[in-house]
Amino acid sequence: KNHPLTGYRKSCWYEEEIEENLRWSFALNSILHTAATQYQDIALLDTKPFGKALVIDGKLQSAEVDEFIYHECLVHPALLHHSNAKSIFIMGGGEGSTAREILRHKNVEKLVMCDIDEEVVEFCKSYLTVNREAFCDPIMELIINDARAELENRKECFDVIIGDLADPIEGGPCYKLYTKSFYEFTIKPRLNPGGIFVTQAGPAGIFSHTEVFSCIYNTLRQVFKYVVPYSAHIPSYADTWGWVMASDSPLALSPEEIDLRMKQRIKGENRYLDGKTFSSASTLSKAVRNSLDNETEVYTEATASKFGWGMM
Amino acid sequence: KNHPLTGYRKSCWYEEEIEENLRWSFALNSILHTAATQYQDIALLDTKPFGKALVIDGKLQSAEVDEFIYHECLVHPALLHHSNAKSIFIMGGGEGSTAREILRHKNVEKLVMCDIDEEVVEFCKSYLTVNREAFCDPIMELIINDARAELENRKECFDVIIGDLADPIEGGPCYKLYTKSFYEFTIKPRLNPGGIFVTQAGPAGIFSHTEVFSCIYNTLRQVFKYVVPYSAHIPSYADTWGWVMASDSPLALSPEEIDLRMKQRIKGENRYLDGKTFSSASTLSKAVRNSLDNETEVYTEATASKFGWGMM
Amino acid sequence: KNHPLTGYRKSCWYEEEIEENLRWSFALNSILHTAATQYQDIALLDTKPFGKALVIDGKLQSAEVDEFIYHECLVHPALLHHSNAKSIFIMGGGEGSTAREILRHKNVEKLVMCDIDEEVVEFCKSYLTVNREAFCDPIMELIINDARAELENRKECFDVIIGDLADPIEGGPCYKLYTKSFYEFTIKPRLNPGGIFVTQAGPAGIFSHTEVFSCIYNTLRQVFKYVVPYSAHIPSYADTWGWVMASDSPLALSPEEIDLRMKQRIKGENRYLDGKTFSSASTLSKAVRNSLDNETEVYTEATASKFGWGMM
Amino acid sequence: KNHPLTGYRKSCWYEEEIEENLRWSFALNSILHTAATQYQDIALLDTKPFGKALVIDGKLQSAEVDEFIYHECLVHPALLHHSNAKSIFIMGGGEGSTAREILRHKNVEKLVMCDIDEEVVEFCKSYLTVNREAFCDPIMELIINDARAELENRKECFDVIIGDLADPIEGGPCYKLYTKSFYEFTIKPRLNPGGIFVTQAGPAGIFSHTEVFSCIYNTLRQVFKYVVPYSAHIPSYADTWGWVMASDSPLALSPEEIDLRMKQRIKGENRYLDGKTFSSASTLSKAVRNSLDNETEVYTEATASKFGWGMM
Repeated sequence: KNHPLTGYRKSCWYEEEIEENLRWSFALNSILHTAATQYQDIALLDTKPFGKALVIDGKLQSAEVDEFIYHECLVHPALLHHSNAKSIFIMGGGEGSTAREILRHKNVEKLVMCDIDEEVVEFCKSYLTVNREAFCDPIMELIINDARAELENRKECFDVIIGDLADPIEGGPCYKLYTKSFYEFTIKPRLNPGGIFVTQAGPAGIFSHTEVFSCIYNTLRQVFKYVVPYSAHIPSYADTWGWVMASDSPLALSPEEIDLRMKQRIKGENRYLDGKTFSSASTLSKAVRNSLDNETEVYTEATASKFGWGMM
Repeated sequence: KNHPLTGYRKSCWYEEEIEENLRWSFALNSILHTAATQYQDIALLDTKPFGKALVIDGKLQSAEVDEFIYHECLVHPALLHHSNAKSIFIMGGGEGSTAREILRHKNVEKLVMCDIDEEVVEFCKSYLTVNREAFCDPIMELIINDARAELENRKECFDVIIGDLADPIEGGPCYKLYTKSFYEFTIKPRLNPGGIFVTQAGPAGIFSHTEVFSCIYNTLRQVFKYVVPYSAHIPSYADTWGWVMASDSPLALSPEEIDLRMKQRIKGENRYLDGKTFSSASTLSKAVRNSLDNETEVYTEATASKFGWGMM
Repeated sequence: KNHPLTGYRKSCWYEEEIEENLRWSFALNSILHTAATQYQDIALLDTKPFGKALVIDGKLQSAEVDEFIYHECLVHPALLHHSNAKSIFIMGGGEGSTAREILRHKNVEKLVMCDIDEEVVEFCKSYLTVNREAFCDPIMELIINDARAELENRKECFDVIIGDLADPIEGGPCYKLYTKSFYEFTIKPRLNPGGIFVTQAGPAGIFSHTEVFSCIYNTLRQVFKYVVPYSAHIPSYADTWGWVMASDSPLALSPEEIDLRMKQRIKGENRYLDGKTFSSASTLSKAVRNSLDNETEVYTEATASKFGWGMM
Repeated sequence: KNHPLTGYRKSCWYEEEIEENLRWSFALNSILHTAATQYQDIALLDTKPFGKALVIDGKLQSAEVDEFIYHECLVHPALLHHSNAKSIFIMGGGEGSTAREILRHKNVEKLVMCDIDEEVVEFCKSYLTVNREAFCDPIMELIINDARAELENRKECFDVIIGDLADPIEGGPCYKLYTKSFYEFTIKPRLNPGGIFVTQAGPAGIFSHTEVFSCIYNTLRQVFKYVVPYSAHIPSYADTWGWVMASDSPLALSPEEIDLRMKQRIKGENRYLDGKTFSSASTLSKAVRNSLDNETEVYTEATASKFGWGMM
């Protein structure tokens, strides 16, 4: 009954509030799957600008066309800076992409992925075809548990521990996995000598880096001797993202050394990261660098209990 | 990686530009089916506020929760005002809802539905379960053709002819099915004595009725002795909608007579229309009434050819 | 630095959530004025589709192009059904449009407008030029007070009392001005013999009328002998709106009598309402009519106190 | 009349289509000024996330909170790499921020800014208080003209020429200011020995750099011996942005040399750029670097005339 129009506009949209006053919207091809787990709501969307997109609790987690930036940055710097990373522990990572990148390293012999939400893991296993192989890899041991509980109960140590968790926000379920005491008394004891810890560290843009990035960095430098923050722009996030790598052994490779180790150790070709890219990513801009240098806040259990999470 | 939020907002939306400066958006559950036919793009959406919604070329055609208003208003007044409507012709109507309402009339013996877009008809047949029975009714004769060509080539006449077509807009494919000469030389000769023509007539709101409603009304009163415009608010259209009924026989029933005929002739119960409702619907507000009285524009082939459609 | 485009789309929008899953957006020319009062946030916008729009707490109150529908419907039926309405009391109405319509009645000698929010009144006085004359009219007595307190403390009675208040929603400040006991013990004692009460009554669409319209109607028919609900589609509200008129004297005028009284009593010409329009407006559609007939809920102080407002 | 809600959502938004399927929306405080010039539509908005924002033809040009990133990156690398930049020519730059950054250099003695749109310049002069001083600086010579015509008619040469123009898109007015022949026959002859040309170069994100960035780079390396592309994430653009600096003299300063020259030559402190930041910005990520290396397209008059601009 209505007017037929030629050249009408796209009519189905995914919309996200990046912050209260800022919105980001993608035209949709379809809504592929939705589910509600015990912990969160989950959806797999087919978006026009960024391909398939995994959305949890109304926030984009990962988009098909550019998740490689996030996952290459999370995984490869730590594994490459380690002299010979054989055993890896992932906190979170239920999507499977972190495991997928780890499994490209020829020297990895043991991989434990510990995510609390079984249904999200099942959802991703079923629908994210790009990670299907990783989920089936015999090296990968999948554990459904709270990452802290799991690390505390385990006896063995790891060469690299990777934090692929939600940001440490007030009232959030992951806050306690970013505190000084957690790093000191849970992470460090589970690292082998020469071991490296790396964590995603939230938005790292010129303004947004003060939300959690600078504080994660400052918390880690209370605990580890060598701490390297780095960042990369991820289009589907509409922001620059940050990671922090930490160790008690030096973390210093030249771009050329990185390129060489990549060639020796990694199956296939990276799409985003190489030696020069990491060199650029770990040279922060003046504003962010100064802000990190001057950060004084530390995530502590005390702060956590202020938020009501201390008892958990 | 992103913040998990409780109480996050709905994130998938269907959005329509009602006019250039006015938008109407429904939260989406899912995008059920999409298709591109020779003539138009078609989608079946599952919307939160209005249930399943049929969208053609970016414009909402029909929503599950309130399509009964449109279709009861299109079909029943004409069939009830006729002394004994046995044969009906639908121009357009591919969705099937118009046929469904007609088939509720016990005295209907013949029903021809003529739509130009076979793929839309097939789409609706497959996915609109509420009309499935209508599509399978042995009384219904489905024809894929241009309605004008079909009416001109047919020999028999009908008691009621129903226009369930897109609005007569500039450059639109349906303009020629709203002209004075079409009504005079194509519709009228195909009506039995006492026959009634009714057409959907576009938006009929206090401002929007000047788009096409007043002109359809004025065109019809050039050709028929008795012409009754009426309207009803349809929530999913974000507007009041209009229809015009026309005949060379008087169209005057009291609310009580309408209620009586409904009881006698219609299977099941109407949800929207009864005698009083029609009385209210056909009593237009002062502004619209005056505007219709004073309308001077007539849709003619000349106007049509001005738009480049005269030769079709 | 960016691409210059011809024919780019409108880029500034006012957006309202009509309900959780339904949005309504107007292209903006400008944001004329904004203010935060003790009670609410207020803004005057210049919108493309509906002209100047008054928005309070994120909800459209009134739009330049169609506020006449709301205000003519609120004021004229009650004043016309009264044999000679000389004294009028408005609860709320700070915008000034209700007073403006009342002051068009030649026989009005006394007009009290009682609004709780002085700053909204000042805002409207300053910026709504169309009501400037009304605000300056010597007949009008403006009082800043809670309408209940004001009516309870006053000694004199009125011919017509008008409720131009926010809807009676859970937790809302106006709930107590819609209860049976308020109507019985506050409104009725302040009406002269033959007096009429009328109130705006929220959305009255085919689905939305169950929100408050049917219950306001049912509450009033517990208290008054004659109760007339009526409705009209208001484009900028994206819905049909409702009003209820109530009295212990009969409320029955033919369309012709209404038209005659309009001519005799009202200065200038109505744009929306005349006798036939009111006849149509007060003949509700089948679904709404049945729903009102069968409504059993009554707004009571008990219900109010359930919401925590009983003590106010 | 409507429900008063606490915690209602922001209701006025600026919305931009970054690309056809991608939207970026800022909550608005107000629409400060709008104007339509001979060439373009212009608006100054007060946005919640990014402060005052200059919008031309529906595209964000510059936002108060982060325009310093764009303008520091456009101006300082070229002026610092030059041994002693005394005379500068800006193509475009009507906003005034480019001039403002140039005027911070103590050794600048002559500054010509040539913009075609007088009304945009006047608009920015009036409303962008941050640049008011720059517009009044006696060193600055403001010329309203087509930049090509101006450069061709001028006799003198410049130490640095800066392109602060809209992107070279099909059908766009600035295409001809990005062609090989323009660089060869108009820019180069107007550069003093040791002179440097720098231009904004459009989006430089991991996907978006193929739109114009790689091609601007490739065109410049046909004409100049030394060409340095670099990029930075600009939050309000929702993308990483690119610039290209070109010269026939070497462009190689260490971060320390850059920092030293900044200290010696620039009044006040940069907010974004320093030696390390430039080192990071000019080390492109693997994907972008490879893509630029392999770019074969060159902007030529022939291509331009294909778009119908060759004759201008």
